[in-house]
Formats: sequence, structure tokens, C-alpha cells
Amino acid sequence: MVDGSIDGFWAVVPAGGAGTRLWPLSRSSSPKFLHDLTGQGRTLLEQTYDRLHPMVGNRFVVVTGRVHEEAVREQLTALGPDGVIAEPSPRDSMAAIGLAAAVLERRAEETGEDLVMGSFAADHVISDPASFHRTVAEAVAAAREDWLVTIGIEPTFPSSAFGYIRQGDALPGHERARVVAAFVEKPSVSVAEDYLATGAYRWNAGMFVCRPGVLLDLLARESPAFASTLRAIAAAPDRLDELWPGLPKIAIDHAVAEPAAADGRVATVPGSFGWDDVGDFDSLATLLGDAEKCSVLGDPSLVLTQQSTGLVVPASGRVVAVIGLDDVVVVDTPDGLLVTTRERAQDVKAIVAELKDQGRAELT
Amino acid sequence: MVDGSIDGFWAVVPAGGAGTRLWPLSRSSSPKFLHDLTGQGRTLLEQTYDRLHPMVGNRFVVVTGRVHEEAVREQLTALGPDGVIAEPSPRDSMAAIGLAAAVLERRAEETGEDLVMGSFAADHVISDPASFHRTVAEAVAAAREDWLVTIGIEPTFPSSAFGYIRQGDALPGHERARVVAAFVEKPSVSVAEDYLATGAYRWNAGMFVCRPGVLLDLLARESPAFASTLRAIAAAPDRLDELWPGLPKIAIDHAVAEPAAADGRVATVPGSFGWDDVGDFDSLATLLGDAEKCSVLGDPSLVLTQQSTGLVVPASGRVVAVIGLDDVVVVDTPDGLLVTTRERAQDVKAIVAELKDQGRAELT
Repeated sequence: MVDGSIDGFWAVVPAGGAGTRLWPLSRSSSPKFLHDLTGQGRTLLEQTYDRLHPMVGNRFVVVTGRVHEEAVREQLTALGPDGVIAEPSPRDSMAAIGLAAAVLERRAEETGEDLVMGSFAADHVISDPASFHRTVAEAVAAAREDWLVTIGIEPTFPSSAFGYIRQGDALPGHERARVVAAFVEKPSVSVAEDYLATGAYRWNAGMFVCRPGVLLDLLARESPAFASTLRAIAAAPDRLDELWPGLPKIAIDHAVAEPAAADGRVATVPGSFGWDDVGDFDSLATLLGDAEKCSVLGDPSLVLTQQSTGLVVPASGRVVAVIGLDDVVVVDTPDGLLVTTRERAQDVKAIVAELKDQGRAELT
Repeated sequence: MVDGSIDGFWAVVPAGGAGTRLWPLSRSSSPKFLHDLTGQGRTLLEQTYDRLHPMVGNRFVVVTGRVHEEAVREQLTALGPDGVIAEPSPRDSMAAIGLAAAVLERRAEETGEDLVMGSFAADHVISDPASFHRTVAEAVAAAREDWLVTIGIEPTFPSSAFGYIRQGDALPGHERARVVAAFVEKPSVSVAEDYLATGAYRWNAGMFVCRPGVLLDLLARESPAFASTLRAIAAAPDRLDELWPGLPKIAIDHAVAEPAAADGRVATVPGSFGWDDVGDFDSLATLLGDAEKCSVLGDPSLVLTQQSTGLVVPASGRVVAVIGLDDVVVVDTPDGLLVTTRERAQDVKAIVAELKDQGRAELT
């Protein structure tokens, strides 16, 4: 079914990560998914909900840190009591998504639903929701055949900031799905150029669609204790605080996706919608931008520019004047100001590290 | 007398001008002379007082706008009731200095003092006060022979931001004083290079030393009504509000110095002390700076920089992070932020003009 509710399909939305390269806008106390980074009046989390809602209705589970549960519930008022799984502490994406899988696996056993889950980050930006819905629907269809399905984004430039998926053979009986030959780590730009030239590579956007039991069984092949602990927590939620700290801190890509791909258990559906993980201010400037002038995220009446290009975020209410700087990044918040260039946007995390080293974690 | 009090010598300190090229630090409501721009814990006005006090004691008159009188008195608590002449409205330097001259001329008539005045801006920075004192003492000696004496600063680079003094013949009986052949307007850099090559040119720092009556008589030759109105106000201070608005708005250079030089009535004493009018942030960066790193005017613990040079003014108390920008200027105040380059420092005034055009004069 396209552009409509998909029976038994649940969205799992891990909402974590401090977004340190987006300091001082994103903070560990207020990470980027809680912010309206596109200037459309909805936060990234709200936009994620809006995008998934037509397919899943309220079959929507956010996995987030306890410190963010209240903020998540304030933004997504439609969520019921079970709509948020609150992690006692950050333990990376395998634990977060795996716990949701274990909870949903139990639910499927209890209700008899033919349940498929899709995991989508809370802080990505996607254009063309109709195309996204068509792609996800194809992924769900493959997942019902017990594939771990990932969505492979069509690369628009040779990015060195993303991992890639190498596509293999077509999946019989499916329109566009293919087997995943391998996941590859973030390449250099020149290697990425080679990837793009072959036409066989896609960006790994970290979107996984699968039956919960498939995910946990794949995890159990690599790490039986990890999977059984997740299932134990789902069976006895009051043991969460006891068992959670013992879980490995590992990304789902390394824990499951890569070994499963090596075993030929992963499929991919190509996505040709616009996608961005808004990883830094350069990426945000591209998203918002017009290379010929300064983009403004916020109230444009606060910004005065002359012969400047780049991105200005006037988030403190003060007037910001920029004169004669190209590809500049100016981010003005009530307690911190960043001035850099789009080219140096990656280095913002070093400032956050320096502030932590100085014992000024309250600013990060 | 060197480095000591000079009998009958009075300092007249015009304290005006908004310093729009130093926005957002300098405002019309709080102009640059009220600010500590050198990071030495004293404002430019206080430093001007400190520098002149050894020569004049409390023979010190500030001419400033009524709106600034209170701030001036708060900074210079040693001033008596007559230590401030408050202008009803800004009418440029001839009216300001001329009114002080008229007041001091009356005083000289009443007390019989052999009174010489020296006019020194409230917002200039001077290094080597001993050299300054020697130069002023020579100027006072020439002024006692009824010359209008200006101090000609030895140029250290071919500036296009300052007017120049072309020196003529030596003044007989004086160590270094010369007749002024002409004042010349701000030249281009290449013309300024030619000036420097001749060795005959000095920067015009707008410092004038003279008997008050000499100044007013020179003014009377050009504009008899102007001089007589100033003398009328000095004779009847309660007529200030009535007569002041009718005075021409003109700089002392055009009203008196240039025509007097053409008549051979102006002398100059060379000053080889460091001098700067701190006209913009480029000039301030040079004054504070180290071309190899970012200078900070304010609390250095608020500024984190990586591979950056230029000037950062953290005047709002917030943390300022600057990454990968050369010759940058970042000025952070509670209600306005400026980000530009040293090269574009002159263009800051256009931002102030734009804010005024937008009806946001409260920010200027």
C-alpha cells in the first residue's frame, strides 16, 4: 500500500546523539532532533513523526534518553504511554533499536500481529514524502520475507561523510529491491567518486526495516547474550535499570547489519528522495541554502548582511550584522556564539571537546 | 617645563561623535570615548585625562553633549562644576572648541592669566606620554607667540584615513616647530606613499594649541558672526540655548586651521609618540594586536579560537568560538553582534545607517 497506512507496520525512532558539530545550537541537554533546523516551524522529531504518521498511525515508538523523555512527549503529544521507551543511559543504536525490537516482538506474540518495524532516525531531513512512502512500502514487503531491509539513498555527490551500500543481485519478486553485497565505511572523496561512477553504490542512511524477531535472531548469531538480555528486559520491564548498563555500546551497523550482509541476509530498496542527516552547519547551509547569498535560519529581520554568503542562525534575539565574508557560519545563541566557515564546520566538535576539557560542560 | 605642570595651560577636550564604525561597541548613546577600548581598565576619556593631568592639573574642560554630561562626570570625578561644558546639540568641532575658547578668553581677561589652551580629542590613544608632554610643551611655547599650533604626528604608514600637514620653514627660536605650509585632505594610499617619501608630511591629529583669543580672532576673519556669537554665549551663559542652534556646523579644520595656514598663521610641532584615533576595528586590531593570533578585548576566558587571526570583543559575557578565519572581527554585545573582516571595517557604518533607515535607532 502506498501513501497510506501499512497494516502491522511500526515506526521505531531512536532519538539520541548530542549533535556536537551543531554546537551551540544543538546541546547534549537539547539535541538536534528537538530543534527546528529547517525553519519550517516543526522540529526534526516532529517532522519525522509527520512523515511516518500516514504509514503507521500511532504505531510509533521513540527510544530516547530519560533526560529527553519529557521534551519528546511535549513535542509529540499524540504518543500514548507506550510511545516512548526511555533509556537509563546512552548505549548506542543496537541497544536502543534492539530494545524496541524486543518489546515489539513480545507484542506480536501477544496479539498475533504480522508485525514489521522500521527504524528511522529522529534527526534526518527528507524531502518528497510520497517517494519515501513508496520506498518504505517496498521495504516492508521484503521484510515480510524475513529480510533485514535497508534503504539505500541515491547519492547526489561523492560524500565522504556517509557510509555506502554496495548493491548485489535483484531480489526475485520485488520491483526494485536488491541483495546487499556489502556495507562499506565512509570513503575518501576520490573513492566515493569511483563508487558513484559504478552506479552500484548507495548511501547508508541507517534505515532498517525488518520483523523484530529477525533483527534479534541476527543479533543472537553474533552476540547471544546481547539478544537474550534485550528479550529479558522486554519480558520484565522492571529489570531495565538492572540489565541496561551491561549491554554493549555498539552501532546496529556493526552489531548486525554488516555481518548479516556478509551472510546474504540483507536486502536494500533504493530511495531517490532527498535525504540529509544534517550532520554539521555545512550540511545545514546546503539544505537551506542559496550559494549566492546568506541563508538565515530564524527571524530574517534580525540579520543584516553585506556581500556575504553562508549561514546565519540568529537564535538569541539579537541583531546580527555580517559584512564581506564568504561561506561564513554564524550561530548566535543566548550563551554561546560560533563563527566559522562552511569548510571548517566539522571542527566545531573540537570546540565542544575543549569546553568539556575546561570543565564547562554546561555550555555543551 | 617638561613632564610637569605648565602654568596657564588648559586642556579642552571635545568629547563627541558616535564612533559608528565601532558599532556595536560604540553607540550614539554610549560613544567610544566612554569605553575602555585598550583593555587597560580605563576608558579613552579617562586615559585622556590621565595623560593631560600632569600638565594641566584640574585646568581641564570637557565639551560634550548634554546627554553625555552625567557619564562624563561619573568617569572624571575630579572635575569641578565648570569642568564640563554641555552642548545643547551636536554642532561639530568649531562650535565646541570655540565655545570653550570663548569661556577661557573671558577667564583670562578676568584673572589676568597668560592662558593657553590645547584641544585634544577624548577618544584618541597615545603611547609614550613623556614624549607627548615634551611635544605639547613646545607647542605651548609657540602658542605664547600667538601662533595657532598643531601637533604633526610622524606617519608610520601611508594611511588614507588621516589628513596630512605639509611642513614649511622652521620657526625661529624654537627647537622643532615649523610653519604649516598647508593642510591636505585624506589622500589615496599611493599619494600618501609619495607624502611619506618627501619626509615633509605629518598626520593631522586634530590637536590645536593656542591662546583662546587667537583662535577666536582667526575665526572672526572667516566668520565674524560665529566668533561674536561664541563670545556672546561666554558673556551670558543663560543665552546658550537661544544662540547655540544658530551656530554653523563645521569642523575647526575647515573653519579656522586651513584658512589660517594659507595666511601663514599656523605652526606645527612634530610628535613622534604613537598615536591612533581608533577609527574602526581594523585600527583597534592593530593597536591591540598580534598579527599571528586573535586579539581579545575583554575577558580572554570567554574566547576559544582555532587557526584564526583578527579581533574578538566578547562584551556580552557569552562564550565566543572562532574557527578558521583570518583577519576576522567579531564584536559581541548584549543586543548586537558584528562579524566582519579587518579589511571591511570601514563598512560597519553602513550597517548603522541601515539600522537607522529601518527605524531601529535604539540599536545604534
